[in-house]
Amino acid sequence: MDYRIEKDTMGDVKVASDKLWGAQTERSKNNFKIGAPGSMPLEIIYGFAYLKKAAAFTNCELGALPVEKRDYIAQVCDEILAGKHDDQFPLVIWQTGSGTQSNMNLNEVIANRAHQLAGKIIGEGEKTLSPNDDVNKSQSSNDTFPTGMHIAAYKKIHEVTIPGVQKLRNTLKKKSEEFKNVVKIGRTHFMDATPLTLGQEFSGYVAQLDHGIKALENTLPHLSELALGGTAVGTGLNTPKGYSKRVAEFITKFTELPFTSAPNKFEALAAHDAFVESHGALKQLAVSLNKIANDIRMLSSGPRSGIGEINIPANEPGSSIMPGKVNPTQCEALTMVCAQVMGNDVAISVGGMQGQFELNVFKPLMAANFLHSAQLLGDACISFEEHCASGIEPNHKRIKELLDNSLMLVTALNTKIGYYKAAEIANTAHKNGTTLKEEAVNLGYVTSEEFDEWVNPKDMVGGLK
Amino acid sequence: MDYRIEKDTMGDVKVASDKLWGAQTERSKNNFKIGAPGSMPLEIIYGFAYLKKAAAFTNCELGALPVEKRDYIAQVCDEILAGKHDDQFPLVIWQTGSGTQSNMNLNEVIANRAHQLAGKIIGEGEKTLSPNDDVNKSQSSNDTFPTGMHIAAYKKIHEVTIPGVQKLRNTLKKKSEEFKNVVKIGRTHFMDATPLTLGQEFSGYVAQLDHGIKALENTLPHLSELALGGTAVGTGLNTPKGYSKRVAEFITKFTELPFTSAPNKFEALAAHDAFVESHGALKQLAVSLNKIANDIRMLSSGPRSGIGEINIPANEPGSSIMPGKVNPTQCEALTMVCAQVMGNDVAISVGGMQGQFELNVFKPLMAANFLHSAQLLGDACISFEEHCASGIEPNHKRIKELLDNSLMLVTALNTKIGYYKAAEIANTAHKNGTTLKEEAVNLGYVTSEEFDEWVNPKDMVGGLK
Amino acid sequence: MDYRIEKDTMGDVKVASDKLWGAQTERSKNNFKIGAPGSMPLEIIYGFAYLKKAAAFTNCELGALPVEKRDYIAQVCDEILAGKHDDQFPLVIWQTGSGTQSNMNLNEVIANRAHQLAGKIIGEGEKTLSPNDDVNKSQSSNDTFPTGMHIAAYKKIHEVTIPGVQKLRNTLKKKSEEFKNVVKIGRTHFMDATPLTLGQEFSGYVAQLDHGIKALENTLPHLSELALGGTAVGTGLNTPKGYSKRVAEFITKFTELPFTSAPNKFEALAAHDAFVESHGALKQLAVSLNKIANDIRMLSSGPRSGIGEINIPANEPGSSIMPGKVNPTQCEALTMVCAQVMGNDVAISVGGMQGQFELNVFKPLMAANFLHSAQLLGDACISFEEHCASGIEPNHKRIKELLDNSLMLVTALNTKIGYYKAAEIANTAHKNGTTLKEEAVNLGYVTSEEFDEWVNPKDMVGGLK
Amino acid sequence: MDYRIEKDTMGDVKVASDKLWGAQTERSKNNFKIGAPGSMPLEIIYGFAYLKKAAAFTNCELGALPVEKRDYIAQVCDEILAGKHDDQFPLVIWQTGSGTQSNMNLNEVIANRAHQLAGKIIGEGEKTLSPNDDVNKSQSSNDTFPTGMHIAAYKKIHEVTIPGVQKLRNTLKKKSEEFKNVVKIGRTHFMDATPLTLGQEFSGYVAQLDHGIKALENTLPHLSELALGGTAVGTGLNTPKGYSKRVAEFITKFTELPFTSAPNKFEALAAHDAFVESHGALKQLAVSLNKIANDIRMLSSGPRSGIGEINIPANEPGSSIMPGKVNPTQCEALTMVCAQVMGNDVAISVGGMQGQFELNVFKPLMAANFLHSAQLLGDACISFEEHCASGIEPNHKRIKELLDNSLMLVTALNTKIGYYKAAEIANTAHKNGTTLKEEAVNLGYVTSEEFDEWVNPKDMVGGLK
Repeated sequence: MDYRIEKDTMGDVKVASDKLWGAQTERSKNNFKIGAPGSMPLEIIYGFAYLKKAAAFTNCELGALPVEKRDYIAQVCDEILAGKHDDQFPLVIWQTGSGTQSNMNLNEVIANRAHQLAGKIIGEGEKTLSPNDDVNKSQSSNDTFPTGMHIAAYKKIHEVTIPGVQKLRNTLKKKSEEFKNVVKIGRTHFMDATPLTLGQEFSGYVAQLDHGIKALENTLPHLSELALGGTAVGTGLNTPKGYSKRVAEFITKFTELPFTSAPNKFEALAAHDAFVESHGALKQLAVSLNKIANDIRMLSSGPRSGIGEINIPANEPGSSIMPGKVNPTQCEALTMVCAQVMGNDVAISVGGMQGQFELNVFKPLMAANFLHSAQLLGDACISFEEHCASGIEPNHKRIKELLDNSLMLVTALNTKIGYYKAAEIANTAHKNGTTLKEEAVNLGYVTSEEFDEWVNPKDMVGGLK
Repeated sequence: MDYRIEKDTMGDVKVASDKLWGAQTERSKNNFKIGAPGSMPLEIIYGFAYLKKAAAFTNCELGALPVEKRDYIAQVCDEILAGKHDDQFPLVIWQTGSGTQSNMNLNEVIANRAHQLAGKIIGEGEKTLSPNDDVNKSQSSNDTFPTGMHIAAYKKIHEVTIPGVQKLRNTLKKKSEEFKNVVKIGRTHFMDATPLTLGQEFSGYVAQLDHGIKALENTLPHLSELALGGTAVGTGLNTPKGYSKRVAEFITKFTELPFTSAPNKFEALAAHDAFVESHGALKQLAVSLNKIANDIRMLSSGPRSGIGEINIPANEPGSSIMPGKVNPTQCEALTMVCAQVMGNDVAISVGGMQGQFELNVFKPLMAANFLHSAQLLGDACISFEEHCASGIEPNHKRIKELLDNSLMLVTALNTKIGYYKAAEIANTAHKNGTTLKEEAVNLGYVTSEEFDEWVNPKDMVGGLK
Repeated sequence: MDYRIEKDTMGDVKVASDKLWGAQTERSKNNFKIGAPGSMPLEIIYGFAYLKKAAAFTNCELGALPVEKRDYIAQVCDEILAGKHDDQFPLVIWQTGSGTQSNMNLNEVIANRAHQLAGKIIGEGEKTLSPNDDVNKSQSSNDTFPTGMHIAAYKKIHEVTIPGVQKLRNTLKKKSEEFKNVVKIGRTHFMDATPLTLGQEFSGYVAQLDHGIKALENTLPHLSELALGGTAVGTGLNTPKGYSKRVAEFITKFTELPFTSAPNKFEALAAHDAFVESHGALKQLAVSLNKIANDIRMLSSGPRSGIGEINIPANEPGSSIMPGKVNPTQCEALTMVCAQVMGNDVAISVGGMQGQFELNVFKPLMAANFLHSAQLLGDACISFEEHCASGIEPNHKRIKELLDNSLMLVTALNTKIGYYKAAEIANTAHKNGTTLKEEAVNLGYVTSEEFDEWVNPKDMVGGLK
Repeated sequence: MDYRIEKDTMGDVKVASDKLWGAQTERSKNNFKIGAPGSMPLEIIYGFAYLKKAAAFTNCELGALPVEKRDYIAQVCDEILAGKHDDQFPLVIWQTGSGTQSNMNLNEVIANRAHQLAGKIIGEGEKTLSPNDDVNKSQSSNDTFPTGMHIAAYKKIHEVTIPGVQKLRNTLKKKSEEFKNVVKIGRTHFMDATPLTLGQEFSGYVAQLDHGIKALENTLPHLSELALGGTAVGTGLNTPKGYSKRVAEFITKFTELPFTSAPNKFEALAAHDAFVESHGALKQLAVSLNKIANDIRMLSSGPRSGIGEINIPANEPGSSIMPGKVNPTQCEALTMVCAQVMGNDVAISVGGMQGQFELNVFKPLMAANFLHSAQLLGDACISFEEHCASGIEPNHKRIKELLDNSLMLVTALNTKIGYYKAAEIANTAHKNGTTLKEEAVNLGYVTSEEFDEWVNPKDMVGGLK
């Protein structure tokens, strides 16, 4: 391996010549060989790129950094955000719990890359930027990492989760309207019940997702609060006057998202309740989506021995030995995602509850699980929408067959002949395996014409009064 | 046992003469011997009492129930709410997942008690009220139980949880102000760091609880939505026109809490995402409180071999063999409550995710866990406030000793003599077990006077800029 | 209130005259008003009674306690175990995390009751027993509470959980054998698949429970380890020589359960991994039972619009407005219990992970959740067995109808006419809503006789080769 | 893109020319764009390679596959196991819940690669192997995926988890022995308590890990049971006689691990309780490791304002502004891993509880979370051992200082001068901030010589009796 020598306060470290990082990144790489390499999410790296650029602009504006250095930092941050250096961030989630080494990874890469942009060779000549004194100016790992987390999380929810859920919600809403006249048997306790329309059934799903999106949006103000400016313990030591507010404004400008400076920086470093809060809403969405996907799985079951009230698209061969088998594979992928989100929620809560004094040191864990959930939910909703929900069609024949056959329609007779006679009809039909009408007429309680007039499922779904 | 015969559609059942309940309650008692008897929370029973009364008023107003019956129902409901019949609700959480049997327990007790109020003997004479046709009129278990759940949960949060958390928050806020000039060493990674004030440290706790209360309040609109009027599957079958809206108004009137009729009754029966949502906020509070209680436990540790920066009240003998031992028992009770709430959150989510078609049948589980958490959190905050937080005092001597001794104050010299010389001072003092000042002067980097002028912890905590 | 004055090292406390407890119990009652009063499980109290008696016998045998005192202690412990003093233990789970105050509750009650047995009046005359010096001799809260926990947990698993699960397992095994010739359609992905017997389906449930019982039994050796003899920090300070081993033998003798003295007392005080371990097995059982109960719920769904392959007993009226409705209420109770156990598992793990130095102070939380799960699982299995599983019967007509109708039987033709022709038959039948046989003959691939010979579901379930 | 046409029963699909996979893999890639591409763990792919090879050998031996085809299959499987085709498995976890498409991915890659090995061009000439008829012979996704899961999980535990935990355990054991004479203050409730040795403290950690390894090993028999031979629903349809047993023997031979054929194939397809069981033990280890890492974090806290009883290695600069700061970064990485494992446990349980009828369709979720935990725990233990535990040294000066200063040593006087006088000494010393000895002598209860003789911490840690 071709290498150069990088230094930090603990001494020399060999770094491969083609890498932009420095000594502390290399140490972390060697000291934390836990799980897959490079597991620290790129979204966090990008969050850092936004904040490093914003810090440079703020420091410059407040007279703490020359324009030239600001511009070098900004240029490299823009390159990072353009995805040009994705392979320069090799660290893992399972490092220092403050994410210190990922902060240094950014500082080192920005400084070394700026050196290249200045036309120099890394490790030679006067440093263009100092990782600590320039790139990290007015910052600490303790306030940068949570800021990077919040930027990454907010962006992910804004760009992936909410659009994904909303798209699925819109399709379900459209289906709910399409199916508004499809009267079908209801099921409670997984047992036959009084009828409703397929549209009404789907409207419940829409209401769940509407509530879920609302719940998620309710958490965004807390998530929009940035720790930057708190530095080491929240007091803002070593930051220029006006820094906190201004740096949040620059981040807002660069990300085009409404971030604010956290009113209490002690909370912003020592606790990540904003992550617990927002992920709680993600978990709620998982709970909702699990119900919806499960219903659709069961409604489409069959083709001959299940419920079979709806048809879903066949996207792939279902079985190598059983032809005609269409599996609800999108339901399965989505419900697996829901289970993952429920697990991630516990990981995040367990991390969140263990902050100590001025710092919570479960930051990378919390960030990684959050981003994982937010991405999976958004993606899975899109996938489910495109490959399943949008193609759902009622199986009218089956729906009618089950409806006509149902014993629960007898409920309509309660007000005509009384509960006990109605019960007798239902029980007799159940015992004999006959229809309600047959037994109703046989028992002499109603005429055939009366039955047809009185027992009309359409009259039983007539909207709430 | 002295008994009478009660009947339902399945036949006769013996019920003890001194009990007000009927056949279905008795069956449930015999069929579900799971866990402690009578575990169904009384708050649910009271929630039912409100809604049964409201339904009677609505039915009457809409012409579906005579005034006399309305008044009997209302009178018994008022007795129930006054706690006069607490021993008439013997059922357990682990029954039908729709809570059907608890609904019938209410219907039966109300009908039988009304019979007594009418001066008759239970089981004799014409029924004063029919449990099904009068007390349960325009209702189904499927919409009453979730309505009872929401009433109970909303009340509990309103009356117990928020007041409890708020009281603790206010005391911490007061302490934060009292301690605003107490400069102390900060700790990150559980290691010495730059200073802050004890007031700043406590302000972080206040911010956590403020955010937590806000998060909880954000969930209340969803929780205020009542299922009543949806009846069996959400279509509102067998309810008079205008019923849903009016019954919610009566419930609001009787409870003096701002309930509304759920806009989508299908969601309100088939999913309990509102419980998942609100309990998510309770879990967030648990996460916050665990951090706060842990910090206080550790800050008060000692008396000789711990951190010892604060003193907490001694409420009980700490040990039968070790005199002078004051244990942070309120911290322990509170953190145990937090662990319970984290577990309850999983139980609620697992129940919430498993709704099927038109009904979620994990209602009693979800309700019981929710009420458990809401009560424990409120009570534990009060207990912690009264017996611990309100009595917290700084141990000024210890705080000063640790602060003066700290190596991290060297950070103040960075801007005067540079990072490397500052580091040399700190490392030398660490190695030699000496003070920063000694080594700073010995190494010839600063004079004694300069050190005293420059290294002033009070200047290092000066608020965010 | 009639009261007497009780004292401890912190001074005087008023205690109601009719109560046997003393000052420390009364203080705890007042200092921890969290949740329902008296929530500390009685099983823990009984566990303490065993260990107090065993300690008295051991102390006496080793010369540290006179026979007379031993006998007083033993006599009161026997009374407690007979349930005579259940109302003398008013404390809650949410107290000191070491359970110190429940230990003192026992010490105080035993001492005061012994005083009565000695013919004296509580608070008057020379003390018959000292709560600390006699009843608590050679003990500390730190080793007694975990000992009480282990005794209670082991007994509960032995007496309630395993017998309950085993009873259900035996009934399912019997059903599996009864149903061994009932050929039915299989379902994978909730879609029709190749056939199996109902007996085979049930055999999977039996295998799950067998594995679960085995897993639970594997954890018992760890649970059988008792902390007693470790006293305050695990060193056994202030215990007579030979105490640890002997006291475990006495506990074994009194409980008739195979307890041992924990080889490492430091682990036994500072960690409760044995609870995490055993409850992990309870959670596994919950996972298994949820699957089983869910299957039975779905297999019995209908009566007209579901799967309907089995009938389950009707134990109660299912609905007040829908006659003939039998709900799978035992499945619902059982799956709610499973959800609770899954939540309790998180509470226990969160408590278990937070031990610090020489003590874990989440003991009452862990104990209460463990006992809750162990009781609920045992009870729910008995309830499910008695009121559901034992009455399961195949609905032969429905099973045959679905089987005959199935398209998946075409798989049997693969080896005769090839996969592609078989697929064509199935797809055509699916499209036309016809039977396989019709289309197979129509397409000219097989004769009617060949079809009947080759497509025989019974040949498709023939056991593993 | 250069592509070829691949076919399946649904028609043509374009696949990039340089890829070995076929139509079904390509469809899955397009239909499940959820989360990071290629997230299906390679360990599962390797598990499949073992089983495909074993199935080929078994089929051949039982006369169902020609030797030449067996050898092609085996050759490609060996290449896969050598890591030569890692980039040919692009599918994600979030696919069909049975993992069908990953099974087909293997079948397709093996068939196409065999075609290359036969000197032919993919897509041209007679197929060397049929993915379904040859590579998948006597198999179904439903039994292969769980078999691959079990192979992967068992190997990971055997090769990564247990060795990692064992290595850490051995180092802690060594430290425990090294520290056996280091008497130090004990801490209960995070408060000063009676003394013990640092070796005793560490022995508790060793006992925890010994119990954890034992618990994990207890679960291996269940994990060793393989589903292979059950095919579609567990009946073994389309397998030759003797297949199940023989194929498990071949897998045992190839993996050198003691696999067996699951006695009940219905359980093996429809439930993955073995994963729930084994991961329960992983979670127990996480609970234990969290306690251990937390203790070490706190014991090493300081350097001036914490506990500071031990020193841990300094592996990286702790802070960019605070020199001399050594953070317990390995503790932080390890405790983050523990939180992850606790979350993964919930994901696995939620997946495990939702099997339906003959199939659990949360297989990839369960497998991925399991492997994640098993890898992280093993790696984190190695990392913690190498970079932290092996370098732990007592800070004798600090330990002695705290011990000498402790008030809890007064406990040793209880038996000499009585509890009340001892308490008076301790309380006076506490109030005055003096030493026990000073006050003991001042109060006239003991002489200086008596104090030195009686109050000897070494006599207070003397082992269990």
